[in-house]
Amino acid sequence: MAREAAGAARRWTYAFEEGRAGMRELLGGKGASLAEMTAIGLPVPPGFTITTAACVEYLRRGEAFLGEIEAEVEERLRELEGKVGRRLGDPDDPLLVSVRSGAAISMPGMMDTVLNLGLGDRSVEGLARRTGDLRFARDSYRRFIQMFGDVVLGIEHDRFEDILAEVKARRGARLDTDLDAEALADVIERYRRLVREATGRPFPEDPREQLGLAIQAVFRSWNNERAVVYRRLHRIPDDLGTAVNVQAMVFGNRGPTSGTGVVFTRDPNTGEPVLYGEYLPNAQGEDVVAGIRTPLPVGELKARQPETYAELERTAGLLERHYRDMQDIEFTVEEGRLYLLQARSGKRAPRAAVRIAHDLAAEGVLTKEEAVLRVDPEDVVRLLHRNVDREAPKTLLARGLPASPGAATGEVVFDADTAARLGAEGRSVILVRPQTTPDDIHGIVAAAGVLTSRGGMTCHAAIVARGMGKPCIVGCEALAIDLAARAFRAGERVVREGEVITFDGALGEVYLGPVPTVEPELTPEFRDLMRWADEARRLGVHANADTPEDARRARELGAEGIGLCRTEHMFMAADRVPIVQAMIMAETAEERAEALAALLPMQEGDFEGILRAMAGYPVTIRLLDPPLHEFLPDTEELSRRIAELKAQGADPAEIARREEILRKARALREANPMLGHRGVRLGITMPEIYEMQARAIFQAQARLLREGVDARPEVMIPLVGHVRELAEMRRLVERVRAEVSRETGVELSAPVGTMIEVPRAALTAGEIAREAEFFSFGTNDLTQMTFGFSRDDAEAKFLHHYLHEKILPENPFAVVDVQGVGELVRMAVEAGRRTRPDLVVGVCGEHGGDPRSIAFFHEVGLDYVSCSPFRVPIARLAAAQAALRGAREREAAGAAG
Amino acid sequence: MAREAAGAARRWTYAFEEGRAGMRELLGGKGASLAEMTAIGLPVPPGFTITTAACVEYLRRGEAFLGEIEAEVEERLRELEGKVGRRLGDPDDPLLVSVRSGAAISMPGMMDTVLNLGLGDRSVEGLARRTGDLRFARDSYRRFIQMFGDVVLGIEHDRFEDILAEVKARRGARLDTDLDAEALADVIERYRRLVREATGRPFPEDPREQLGLAIQAVFRSWNNERAVVYRRLHRIPDDLGTAVNVQAMVFGNRGPTSGTGVVFTRDPNTGEPVLYGEYLPNAQGEDVVAGIRTPLPVGELKARQPETYAELERTAGLLERHYRDMQDIEFTVEEGRLYLLQARSGKRAPRAAVRIAHDLAAEGVLTKEEAVLRVDPEDVVRLLHRNVDREAPKTLLARGLPASPGAATGEVVFDADTAARLGAEGRSVILVRPQTTPDDIHGIVAAAGVLTSRGGMTCHAAIVARGMGKPCIVGCEALAIDLAARAFRAGERVVREGEVITFDGALGEVYLGPVPTVEPELTPEFRDLMRWADEARRLGVHANADTPEDARRARELGAEGIGLCRTEHMFMAADRVPIVQAMIMAETAEERAEALAALLPMQEGDFEGILRAMAGYPVTIRLLDPPLHEFLPDTEELSRRIAELKAQGADPAEIARREEILRKARALREANPMLGHRGVRLGITMPEIYEMQARAIFQAQARLLREGVDARPEVMIPLVGHVRELAEMRRLVERVRAEVSRETGVELSAPVGTMIEVPRAALTAGEIAREAEFFSFGTNDLTQMTFGFSRDDAEAKFLHHYLHEKILPENPFAVVDVQGVGELVRMAVEAGRRTRPDLVVGVCGEHGGDPRSIAFFHEVGLDYVSCSPFRVPIARLAAAQAALRGAREREAAGAAG
Repeated sequence: MAREAAGAARRWTYAFEEGRAGMRELLGGKGASLAEMTAIGLPVPPGFTITTAACVEYLRRGEAFLGEIEAEVEERLRELEGKVGRRLGDPDDPLLVSVRSGAAISMPGMMDTVLNLGLGDRSVEGLARRTGDLRFARDSYRRFIQMFGDVVLGIEHDRFEDILAEVKARRGARLDTDLDAEALADVIERYRRLVREATGRPFPEDPREQLGLAIQAVFRSWNNERAVVYRRLHRIPDDLGTAVNVQAMVFGNRGPTSGTGVVFTRDPNTGEPVLYGEYLPNAQGEDVVAGIRTPLPVGELKARQPETYAELERTAGLLERHYRDMQDIEFTVEEGRLYLLQARSGKRAPRAAVRIAHDLAAEGVLTKEEAVLRVDPEDVVRLLHRNVDREAPKTLLARGLPASPGAATGEVVFDADTAARLGAEGRSVILVRPQTTPDDIHGIVAAAGVLTSRGGMTCHAAIVARGMGKPCIVGCEALAIDLAARAFRAGERVVREGEVITFDGALGEVYLGPVPTVEPELTPEFRDLMRWADEARRLGVHANADTPEDARRARELGAEGIGLCRTEHMFMAADRVPIVQAMIMAETAEERAEALAALLPMQEGDFEGILRAMAGYPVTIRLLDPPLHEFLPDTEELSRRIAELKAQGADPAEIARREEILRKARALREANPMLGHRGVRLGITMPEIYEMQARAIFQAQARLLREGVDARPEVMIPLVGHVRELAEMRRLVERVRAEVSRETGVELSAPVGTMIEVPRAALTAGEIAREAEFFSFGTNDLTQMTFGFSRDDAEAKFLHHYLHEKILPENPFAVVDVQGVGELVRMAVEAGRRTRPDLVVGVCGEHGGDPRSIAFFHEVGLDYVSCSPFRVPIARLAAAQAALRGAREREAAGAAG
Repeated sequence: MAREAAGAARRWTYAFEEGRAGMRELLGGKGASLAEMTAIGLPVPPGFTITTAACVEYLRRGEAFLGEIEAEVEERLRELEGKVGRRLGDPDDPLLVSVRSGAAISMPGMMDTVLNLGLGDRSVEGLARRTGDLRFARDSYRRFIQMFGDVVLGIEHDRFEDILAEVKARRGARLDTDLDAEALADVIERYRRLVREATGRPFPEDPREQLGLAIQAVFRSWNNERAVVYRRLHRIPDDLGTAVNVQAMVFGNRGPTSGTGVVFTRDPNTGEPVLYGEYLPNAQGEDVVAGIRTPLPVGELKARQPETYAELERTAGLLERHYRDMQDIEFTVEEGRLYLLQARSGKRAPRAAVRIAHDLAAEGVLTKEEAVLRVDPEDVVRLLHRNVDREAPKTLLARGLPASPGAATGEVVFDADTAARLGAEGRSVILVRPQTTPDDIHGIVAAAGVLTSRGGMTCHAAIVARGMGKPCIVGCEALAIDLAARAFRAGERVVREGEVITFDGALGEVYLGPVPTVEPELTPEFRDLMRWADEARRLGVHANADTPEDARRARELGAEGIGLCRTEHMFMAADRVPIVQAMIMAETAEERAEALAALLPMQEGDFEGILRAMAGYPVTIRLLDPPLHEFLPDTEELSRRIAELKAQGADPAEIARREEILRKARALREANPMLGHRGVRLGITMPEIYEMQARAIFQAQARLLREGVDARPEVMIPLVGHVRELAEMRRLVERVRAEVSRETGVELSAPVGTMIEVPRAALTAGEIAREAEFFSFGTNDLTQMTFGFSRDDAEAKFLHHYLHEKILPENPFAVVDVQGVGELVRMAVEAGRRTRPDLVVGVCGEHGGDPRSIAFFHEVGLDYVSCSPFRVPIARLAAAQAALRGAREREAAGAAG
């Protein structure tokens, strides 16, 4: 009685009828789900749950604790027997139960399960008599001993399998199902002998002892090695414990009107609202898994047992409305009667995710806002790109980092010139390089896709390809590229120039030969959903684009402006590189002026094109940013070439010319170009470059305005760290604006602002805002400098290791580091707005297209994010989700407060 | 009367008797000084000052304003006439005055002066009569017309000089003084004609008109071009205006008992308490400046006019006690009577600065604290190093950046091996390189000094040389070094290997041949002053030292510990590089372990030496920091060498070996090594390196403790950006400590802390302090990352331009950037101490030895600064000054509040 009083003070068990979905922490995920389904009247085999708290106590106090729950478990068991109408261990008609683990946080397959518990030498005969199926009964018993022996008694699984194999061999049986009742009796006998030998005790016949041991085994399985490793990897606390679910068994293998199946309530590939799944008549779930028989489409059930199917459909609808999502259901039919064993939100393909969220909103199950929240923005990436057909057969060559999504098929080429030449002939080529440099741009433009063996997610190739919406895989270290031999090796396979490969930039996989690809499709459901997202979001979404084509594409995908137009990409066109190099090699300001004069009309044309394409929307043009040596050849290559030429006794004039270029390239070379002579530092030391660019911008604007085109350039100064840098350049830009205005007679205006990408700029943002009409966070560089990570080096050399070892929770170049980099962003926004309340603040780093980062940018009050054109829809969706979640949190806080 | 009432409401003029030193803003520096001297009874010729406010009004309102001050000036003039007993324009005995500018902030020579004002055709005769010296009177008149014509009437100075030259030529005179009274009458006549021609009006005879015009001219000179440029350069506000001083003239050229001179009240070279200066009998100040006659040492005055000299000595003492500093005095003796024209604190050599501050304290004029505040810490640098004799004749070859003070003379050598070889022979060599790398260490050790044509104040050569206290000049771009020819060119001069040069690292100057140098001397006065400084400071002073010798030197100079012991310098010893390279080339952890095992006893020996040398004081040992490729050869050189060997048909095995090294060096190469795989990132990815280092530290500590030596290592993890990096490494270090403790049976303890040098570390210092027992700000790297400046590149490429154009007020690698980098330091100190109130916080960047930076570190509450051994005395002094200034400010705030 004292024991029962203690039990009343703290309950350790709950019948399914007593729990609810909200009790997940106490009952585990499975227990809470079974309870919820029971509560809403669905056909769930009855049972009860022993709480996670009991597990924790058991692990703390050991076997001694079991005495405290014994009476409670016994009481639940009696109730269960009452509901089913059978008793555990009844020699004539035994109740069989399953004992399953179920933690609060899903750890699939990590812990243990025992089925068919309750059988013994006597009750197996009773089961046979009741079911009229001796083979079924013995097979159930055989399975039980094996599972119990393994899970509870700790006997190696293989030792049971060896016995089974031996009996099968002796009897010439191929499959388990070829064994008849007699053979199974032999197996059982041998199993029992094994148990006795291994444990020194006979197999426990008493079902209550079986149950007690099974419960303890499940408790202990919380600390088995797989579970511990899994928790460490997923950062799940070690002190939660698992619940134990004890449930009456139902059998799908009781004849032609029995069976087992798994269905999705909607098609998980397309989202179409039909039941989708498989059904295996006269079988148990394990048989499906074991692949012994091929299951039928679930539609077959309709033909065979229309009433049962109707019941399944009705139940599916009920579950969807109850859980407000598409469900993945495990069910068993026992002699025509439907039982649910599991129901959870179903995994789905991106296309289906959009369709389901949309349809559930259309059906009134969800609000539009909820529908917007249901789609993972990353899924949208895959919707917008051509993908490799997952079903098609293929030969995987290598895996790399998925740098830019989309699938590409083409001939392998190993240099940009060849890529450009073959591309011009209309051939599809894949540019394969150890890594790319700005010199390779024409090759990247001409290629169907880019594949590099070095570099990280933010290396040159990755950024450029992403910007162009071109498929790209980088850091594919499994490729050993031999440029001289014009071939690469992947494992044993050598691929030579001209051979065809295919790769999928979303998956990071490279395949041999052509592989079929699947077209992207923007469905009406997708368009609806994006409209709803636009209604919900507060953040503006701009695109990073350097060409009129990119600008047009961005506009189609919903961009409301250009947040970053990189002028250096215009310097890299093949026809301009010689002029740019002449400018760099110039020894005097006059020589430089001459080269710049030649560039001016070209830049003007560039700006005219992009401003026209984005008419009516702001176009933020960043003045020249990279160090000048990026436009010159690599010194090591050049140096080697000169040594070769000398050895060959080549023309001295030719050698001298190359030596001159080498001299200049060396003079410009920097130990750390990332932190070197670039950005505004070029503008300050060689103002004539920025002056040319400003002139090109304003002349283009003047011409367009005269045509009646609403051209809205904004001038952005990169790499500012001190307010005086910006002040100086702003003065220059405004002088040029006034000059062009005077020369053309057209009134011109353009806000002047700055990137915030140097930590010092963020730290002194209050001062900088005095001179800046807008801020745009360059979070790529800001992350590099705040962490002291060179993105070109970090991913290959140590960042991978850091992520693997969880030194860092996330790649900070992919997801903004809220604590460090984010703190600088937050400080800068606040200080900037204190100085200038109408300061426009955006972000144009890679993070502008990352959903989790977008949520942060929403929270700190940015005005817009800017990202690659192809990520614009993702950003729209993520921005909407951030706004909706923010509103929810405010409501929750309001309700609480 | 109305006018006088207005004048009463706001005074525009002050007689010298009415002003005081504290009225500098209103009266200008000169006016306030003349007033102060008058007030304390010194013999100053009487006069008055028109205020800076009047100048501002004049510049705002123009000539119209003059009416407002006219009556006041007239009144002051009458008072002046009364004091002198002469009247302006009196034809018999005219009062002559000087009209001089004098702004609140000194702008030497920038504005205009008129002397001898008051002369005209009639009064010049009176002057002649009164003085009995017609030549003197006419020469005074001639000078006046010339000065007035130039300054007031705007007639080019050269036109007067042409006339003078013409008359001299006609009369065969060589010097101005060769012209007699008659000739001067001719000059005057021609001058007057020139004025009439140039201005269309006769020379103004009316002395009141002269005065009015001169006052206006001085007002206007505030805005002359030189003054405007000077103000822009020195960031002096444009709206201060200048005062005008009108003062009775006295004449040192009135005969043998007249004269003029300049004296310092103590010897400005040695500080010895004797009058030091020059005296020119029968002359005016201008004559001294013009160098027409050679002045006599002031002691001559004592022989000639002992009473006047005694008066000068008495006055000097009075001035020193009044101004509480050594004074620089301009004086005139007119017929035996002493007049003071100027007195200000005198400039002095570093040695004298120390002696004077010390002696003034000893004499009771200053307190010890004031004496400590009087010495510029930078002067101490020069006291501690051998310097080039400033007086010696020398041929300047080039100027570079003064990277490390001290003078060196030696044979030029162009590579480290030669330097090491000749150095071993006992020859003094200067290592000349475009730049140095860690491979050159043995050459730097062997050289008397290092000279590079590239690099900034914080490049490799600069840091290493400074650390060794070895003279060094870097970034000496005027040297064109031809390594192949083993020679450099400086201008037209070619210097070949073996020729001797001399350079002074404090001045940044390179000379041809040997030049005499001067020994440093630590005087008793210096030692007293340093003792007083130690009593006053709160900040601890540690040294950055990597060897026992450096540690001992630092201790001698007053260091209270090692704040930074760089273990990588130990890896760079010639005998260790092959082992280090073997470790790097290792393909497996086992191979690496083997190399590390070979390094362990060496490192242990290193640590034992340095811990012994610093017994009783903490030694903060930083684990390996630089990227591993720093220990491998340059890829470009290697690549070229391989091409050459191939062309020569060299041994394929040899080529293959080099190619293997090249492959590894390339694999390790990084785009931005500064932000690459180094510091704790090495520790995380290759823990065996840090493990070896930790073991070496603790084994050394155990051995010393057993010997009874108080070894106090502290283990510092570099480049931490995330708390988990530190946590991981701390666990490793403490595991090794426990192991060594167990193995040796010696109880060991050593705090584990981190550098704060990555912005993210500063931003998340609160978290990091959970794992750190101390912080040491690495302000070099923190500055690099906060500004996004690579120190290797910035100084040569753009920082020089930035400083020249005042985009940045200071070189942030020399003086800590308080707004940006300093803000991070401040945040990190606060957050760190919030987490761990007893956190020890220091700084070990270059800024630890910079006085202004030290003041900041004192203010934000650091516990200590650490700097090069040779800067320890500077740091002690600067720390004391910071404490004393802080106390003063608190007192002032307390008094105000």
